[in-house]
Amino acid sequence: MLSFTCDYLEGAHPEILKKLSQTNLEQTVGYGEDDYCLSAKEKIKKAIDNPNADIYFLCGGTQTNQIAIAGLLKPYEGVICADSGHINVHEAGAIEYCGHKVLAIPQHDGKINSTDLQEYLSQFYADDNQQHMVYPGMVYISYPTEYGTLYSRRELEDIYALCKKYDLTFYIDGARLGYGVVRGENSLKDIAHLCDVFYIGGTKIGALFGEALIFCNNNTPKHFTTVIKQHGALLAKGRMLGIQFDCLFQDDLYIEICQRADEMADEIRRAFKSKNYRLVYENCTNQVFVLMSKTQIERLKTKVDFAVWDKYDEDTYITRFVSSWATTLQNVEILRSLI
Amino acid sequence: MLSFTCDYLEGAHPEILKKLSQTNLEQTVGYGEDDYCLSAKEKIKKAIDNPNADIYFLCGGTQTNQIAIAGLLKPYEGVICADSGHINVHEAGAIEYCGHKVLAIPQHDGKINSTDLQEYLSQFYADDNQQHMVYPGMVYISYPTEYGTLYSRRELEDIYALCKKYDLTFYIDGARLGYGVVRGENSLKDIAHLCDVFYIGGTKIGALFGEALIFCNNNTPKHFTTVIKQHGALLAKGRMLGIQFDCLFQDDLYIEICQRADEMADEIRRAFKSKNYRLVYENCTNQVFVLMSKTQIERLKTKVDFAVWDKYDEDTYITRFVSSWATTLQNVEILRSLI
Amino acid sequence: MLSFTCDYLEGAHPEILKKLSQTNLEQTVGYGEDDYCLSAKEKIKKAIDNPNADIYFLCGGTQTNQIAIAGLLKPYEGVICADSGHINVHEAGAIEYCGHKVLAIPQHDGKINSTDLQEYLSQFYADDNQQHMVYPGMVYISYPTEYGTLYSRRELEDIYALCKKYDLTFYIDGARLGYGVVRGENSLKDIAHLCDVFYIGGTKIGALFGEALIFCNNNTPKHFTTVIKQHGALLAKGRMLGIQFDCLFQDDLYIEICQRADEMADEIRRAFKSKNYRLVYENCTNQVFVLMSKTQIERLKTKVDFAVWDKYDEDTYITRFVSSWATTLQNVEILRSLI
Amino acid sequence: MLSFTCDYLEGAHPEILKKLSQTNLEQTVGYGEDDYCLSAKEKIKKAIDNPNADIYFLCGGTQTNQIAIAGLLKPYEGVICADSGHINVHEAGAIEYCGHKVLAIPQHDGKINSTDLQEYLSQFYADDNQQHMVYPGMVYISYPTEYGTLYSRRELEDIYALCKKYDLTFYIDGARLGYGVVRGENSLKDIAHLCDVFYIGGTKIGALFGEALIFCNNNTPKHFTTVIKQHGALLAKGRMLGIQFDCLFQDDLYIEICQRADEMADEIRRAFKSKNYRLVYENCTNQVFVLMSKTQIERLKTKVDFAVWDKYDEDTYITRFVSSWATTLQNVEILRSLI
Repeated sequence: MLSFTCDYLEGAHPEILKKLSQTNLEQTVGYGEDDYCLSAKEKIKKAIDNPNADIYFLCGGTQTNQIAIAGLLKPYEGVICADSGHINVHEAGAIEYCGHKVLAIPQHDGKINSTDLQEYLSQFYADDNQQHMVYPGMVYISYPTEYGTLYSRRELEDIYALCKKYDLTFYIDGARLGYGVVRGENSLKDIAHLCDVFYIGGTKIGALFGEALIFCNNNTPKHFTTVIKQHGALLAKGRMLGIQFDCLFQDDLYIEICQRADEMADEIRRAFKSKNYRLVYENCTNQVFVLMSKTQIERLKTKVDFAVWDKYDEDTYITRFVSSWATTLQNVEILRSLI
Repeated sequence: MLSFTCDYLEGAHPEILKKLSQTNLEQTVGYGEDDYCLSAKEKIKKAIDNPNADIYFLCGGTQTNQIAIAGLLKPYEGVICADSGHINVHEAGAIEYCGHKVLAIPQHDGKINSTDLQEYLSQFYADDNQQHMVYPGMVYISYPTEYGTLYSRRELEDIYALCKKYDLTFYIDGARLGYGVVRGENSLKDIAHLCDVFYIGGTKIGALFGEALIFCNNNTPKHFTTVIKQHGALLAKGRMLGIQFDCLFQDDLYIEICQRADEMADEIRRAFKSKNYRLVYENCTNQVFVLMSKTQIERLKTKVDFAVWDKYDEDTYITRFVSSWATTLQNVEILRSLI
Repeated sequence: MLSFTCDYLEGAHPEILKKLSQTNLEQTVGYGEDDYCLSAKEKIKKAIDNPNADIYFLCGGTQTNQIAIAGLLKPYEGVICADSGHINVHEAGAIEYCGHKVLAIPQHDGKINSTDLQEYLSQFYADDNQQHMVYPGMVYISYPTEYGTLYSRRELEDIYALCKKYDLTFYIDGARLGYGVVRGENSLKDIAHLCDVFYIGGTKIGALFGEALIFCNNNTPKHFTTVIKQHGALLAKGRMLGIQFDCLFQDDLYIEICQRADEMADEIRRAFKSKNYRLVYENCTNQVFVLMSKTQIERLKTKVDFAVWDKYDEDTYITRFVSSWATTLQNVEILRSLI
Repeated sequence: MLSFTCDYLEGAHPEILKKLSQTNLEQTVGYGEDDYCLSAKEKIKKAIDNPNADIYFLCGGTQTNQIAIAGLLKPYEGVICADSGHINVHEAGAIEYCGHKVLAIPQHDGKINSTDLQEYLSQFYADDNQQHMVYPGMVYISYPTEYGTLYSRRELEDIYALCKKYDLTFYIDGARLGYGVVRGENSLKDIAHLCDVFYIGGTKIGALFGEALIFCNNNTPKHFTTVIKQHGALLAKGRMLGIQFDCLFQDDLYIEICQRADEMADEIRRAFKSKNYRLVYENCTNQVFVLMSKTQIERLKTKVDFAVWDKYDEDTYITRFVSSWATTLQNVEILRSLI
């Protein structure tokens, strides 16, 4: 059955599979020391305009968040994040498993804002019992957020300024980064200059799997390869990750994939609007959130698959439709015909 | 340069790449709930003759060891293993990172024996200070061992009997399992009946990556998928793992790959012996350990790559040559001509 | 300067010091296996009317919470608690340090209620993404709460019923338990029958230090002494704890101490009310919360010490005055004369 | 029954109890910020001749080792120690619980030597697979050792030189430090200048409980009080620790206690030798190890208590007799009459 449940339903962009086949019999060293990883890193450094960036390839989003956050925080530190943040809700406690508290502050359309953040930090540093509390050591956001929304340039700058003022690492979860950078106010280069650490998601953007974790300011934790190994996350055939990112950052393939997927999401938005459905968390990236009644959901679910995201009110639910590199106009047309 | 350094130098067996391409555009659900994972599990259950086995696919060996061991042990328990064991030496403290002590006992050609094990356990349970010590909760071995050696049927039975007597989980690290089961006294089915938990390695046996972790006796830790997620190890496109193992267990491909690789290792052994080199840890699996002088190493290294494993005595080193699915007779001939 | 900042300002109740002196030269075995620990346990079992209770003595409240919670939860589980709960705010992340998420739900006068709890649990078990989330494994409350308030019998019964329904351990932090049981609807025996695990605080109720952790339903984690040791919390001269609790549970000393302290708190309440101060979180235990302006605080602070607890509104603060076994009527009179 | 099983059989030195009584009704702030802690720290700084030392009081030895080691090590680091070391054998895996591997090297009479240490470090840094291994970050010894033996000045200097060369923290477990410094080549001041971090044991040397952890070189981990709290080890009535150490370091009481105990141990040695018993691990501190047959043990155990430490050979056991501040000449005479 046709599905719009998420952006990791298919395999990989054909270019990636092609390159995996072409290089299959080559012998390379393991653990990410090969030439494909090297080449991919060079291309990414160029794309983010930061020749000093330090880049590591990992297999998935939760893994990347867990290792980056555990690697960067001191034992007595926690990470501030929106209460709707992925690390706070949907990573099975992976951050706490490594010993760190997630310090949740309110979300607004999936985003945190600098007013709430400032208040949290002021209160913390004014508290007499501070020594008995978890020190904030990092601010985590995702770009786009869980709801597909984007931070404005000003919003990122304000958060980053607070991070610098309070000596916090600013970390951006970029599981869907591409879908955001081709649309919002912030390009890939901007993102790379508005935070300390971020990752470029591959799993949800055309790769079989893989994320590129980037330390922007000579701030890589010491012996980080060992830290990755200690977390069980060092891929023996590390070239798999290098080859995929080398391919994604060749001839702007990454950008192209994201633009196309966002356009397909626009088509989905138009389809629902043309049938008078109401959208929520309206955004311009690849996730479309639509209000539906229980009856509408049940009927549509017999023809096409999608996620029921949350309850909206007594009778209404928030549903989610997601596009990817593999979404075709034809599929959107089928969806339009069914709603 | 031609390399024999390890068994993960190339990509994947061509059948695997073919199947990844064929299925690329199909939409499947994520996180290992797809039909390919299901099919692969059925094939493995048949291959190990255990219809009740519970199987999970993970990405790498250290990851699999870490999650299985942390998932199975109680907080106050540690895992007994050879002092040369992979988890004791080459996993960057991944077991300890999860809170558990590795209880090392002496290795003999890479193996532990039931005499030492019995003695360790007797002493522990006779100790008045037992409550201040780490309780043994598991025995870990690898098959083949780090040195390519194999346990006899009797040796496995004796260890397993002790595990049952002392209520320990018997866990077999099968990173290179196939290379062992096609040669030694124990078939895949035997292994599956001589332990509580084991994994079938894919990374070192023809897959791009992937290991199949198998709980044999209805002994899966509760909510194990959540445990995997918590470790950052739940692959979004889980079908990648299912497709690869489905392919490896189709028409005995896994067995075929291992037989061929072991034959190539035999050829390497013959080559060295014919040139009067001395072998150590002599075994019948895919790792060949050869004694060389510093001069021999330096000269050969200019032509072919291999690992210098350890010092043997003042002037002699133990080197390692490894075969895989991709090793050809032609390459072994080149090696023979160079030594 | 006279201080009302907390209930651990002085040493121990004189009876305790006396007994420590009397027994000082006796030789006993270590680690809590001595006769004083045994005797104290018997007295506590009688006091809580549970001959099968399993009791362990620990040194402090955070330590007890940490070890009890880490000992009882499975790795994939978290603990539900009021967002104002001690483990969520003032234990420096001790629970997360051991790998577990604190699942905060709203507080109402320091308490959680069964409606919010039911909603949290219903939503969790209705969530399709449940496997990617932290499973609730325990409910934590404190009695009295951080704000000195008490749960009614009905409130405890409702929470405990939900715990049973959803297979959660119900754990009561009794750092100030005595101050509550001598006043509210629930006696010590009631508490012991309305939860699975709780502790009787000593540090804040007359002891030099020490808490008695009680497993009510044959639910002690296996090898719990080893778990305590592993947390660095097994006192060599364990008799120190036994002697203190033996003394506190001799001739109802514990109850007597608490009654007196609560009466002193009543006097403090009367003093503030007679001078037209407004109280908040009004309760009947040993903590009195008073609204004061900045000027009032500054003036009073020159004469007597107390805690400024929180901001109330722009110009008003919540202050806290605490009584203990050592608070005298004379001291309260001095306070009255100063406000 | 008269017991020589260990040095924590009685309560506290009478001077300590006296001071606890004298100060009992004073009100002080909590968590170690009080004047008694301050005064004790000043006295210790003088005693170790290091005005810049940073001192924290904790409750027990395992707790101190755990927090110091976890606080000082980076996540990827482990601690080198004798295979007989307390942290490796008798702390229930407390170090591993905090994520760190104990890297055991051979003991010789309970001590490590610089030759073995140098070899371990050379091999580690020569290993090509270093990134897959646990980095050594600290050397742990105890002074005296588990067997009561002492390191010579030269031995400590050699180990410390290696620590500096390889950037390792040198940590000395001083659970019984006093018994060593009054006898061997190294005074308290010497110890304090021959390592980076150490602790002065109180529990086994006259206190009810308590250890003084000392950072010698401005090397305290940041926010260390919070780290202590996070481990559940921050005592509310911190003055209990301050008062005890203030008392122990008043008028050389600590030294006096240790000298007396060591003299009593000498008497015990003489007693056994005069009856032709053989001693092992012969040393000059407060632990006496005596060889006994099973019959001898069984007979003596009916009259006096002591520890059976280990098997020596088929028919012989190593027993242990320990003296403390409370051991009297009269008791040693009784022992002499029974053996």
